[in-house]
Amino acid sequence: MPRFRLTVEYDGSNYVGWQRQDNGASVQGAIEKAILSLTGETVSIRGAGRTDSGVHAVGQVAHADLTRQWKPHTLRNALNAHLGMAGEGVSILEAEEVTDAFDARFSALRRHYLYRIICRPSRLALEEKRAWWVTKPLDHEAMHEGAQRLVGHHDFTTFRSVHCQATSPMRTLDRLDVTRTGNLIEIRATAQSFLHNQIRSFAGSLKLVGEGKWTPDDLQAALEARDRKACGPVAPPDGLYFMQVDY
Amino acid sequence: MPRFRLTVEYDGSNYVGWQRQDNGASVQGAIEKAILSLTGETVSIRGAGRTDSGVHAVGQVAHADLTRQWKPHTLRNALNAHLGMAGEGVSILEAEEVTDAFDARFSALRRHYLYRIICRPSRLALEEKRAWWVTKPLDHEAMHEGAQRLVGHHDFTTFRSVHCQATSPMRTLDRLDVTRTGNLIEIRATAQSFLHNQIRSFAGSLKLVGEGKWTPDDLQAALEARDRKACGPVAPPDGLYFMQVDY
Repeated sequence: MPRFRLTVEYDGSNYVGWQRQDNGASVQGAIEKAILSLTGETVSIRGAGRTDSGVHAVGQVAHADLTRQWKPHTLRNALNAHLGMAGEGVSILEAEEVTDAFDARFSALRRHYLYRIICRPSRLALEEKRAWWVTKPLDHEAMHEGAQRLVGHHDFTTFRSVHCQATSPMRTLDRLDVTRTGNLIEIRATAQSFLHNQIRSFAGSLKLVGEGKWTPDDLQAALEARDRKACGPVAPPDGLYFMQVDY
Repeated sequence: MPRFRLTVEYDGSNYVGWQRQDNGASVQGAIEKAILSLTGETVSIRGAGRTDSGVHAVGQVAHADLTRQWKPHTLRNALNAHLGMAGEGVSILEAEEVTDAFDARFSALRRHYLYRIICRPSRLALEEKRAWWVTKPLDHEAMHEGAQRLVGHHDFTTFRSVHCQATSPMRTLDRLDVTRTGNLIEIRATAQSFLHNQIRSFAGSLKLVGEGKWTPDDLQAALEARDRKACGPVAPPDGLYFMQVDY
């Protein structure tokens, strides 16, 4: 059975998240439905990251095992046609044939995420559900300084959801950069893998640093507490984008 | 009566356009409703440009005459609160008090618009209704060269809707620049005023130049024909943004 790697963009606003669930439409379900419409096959695809409801992607990766030997660009275009007919906010950016050794989830070496914050007094219209709206300016330099305390190999218990299913809270955070362009603050995070809600927990705590409510030392103390209660309020999903997976 | 100048951002996707109409929700209507909720006053506001359904704005300008002497930032915040409660895709970016001599429409010296085209094989997910999706790359240099033939004082009959209500088809186009960043092509247009559908008519015809179906000379010939039938297919509203008004 040929295996295909799919690179996927989606607007997460109208989905319960990547993963198929009983309580509503998922991105995985939308793609599986398009595969069923196209091929008549009921397949289960696997994604590199289980993004939550409201989280977007411009470079999610999934793999699918199909019976037929599709030309990759034909598969991509046909799936997009079915997604378009169904009115889905999902697009297959690339399809490539890969060997059975490739697994979208387990072969991933690094995952890259972006969290976007827009600081302005007025509510968001065009960027509604595409960024976290914060009414006051944030000190992005303090946020960046604080973020560096989180980089490295740590027990991230403070920054994981109580529902996180990972066996260990230990992770190696390769990068957590905070930059500003006008009123847009971007947080870029890279690691081999992340815990559940880890980046939104980072973003929520970094906002406290940006507001001056926390110092970079307070952020480090929160990390060292290894206690979920030490985390700042978790940031909303709207600002989070799954950007890229390295294999 | 104090007059207020409002700078407005909106996602045009869910509106029949700027102007109040019988057949659905308008941006003007959304703002007038917010003013009514806030002040109890039924007012008619005037905008600098009557954008069509699906056209967005990040810098539309309108003026409103109110009874009460509002502090401008209080007015802005209160209108945004009402727009938010009503779930509108509209935001008041700025409010300023102005004299009666200011008229959002008639005092405008220059209007700036942006038209966005994304060229890629895959349908748009995050940019759906925010850009014109074109499946093939376009030659933006040829488009820019062609666009320069349109700059200046001309009879733009070819590039105006048959429904255009302007008394004269003569306009002075100050700027029509085409640039490319990756797969995004941006067309920036500036004039004191535009005819109905003028920029979407430009974008549709410039696409023909970008595809190599028209030469810059063909575009000039279309202009000189002064005939609506000489225009290329009008581009969709999704890619058009009303950026700024100079006074």
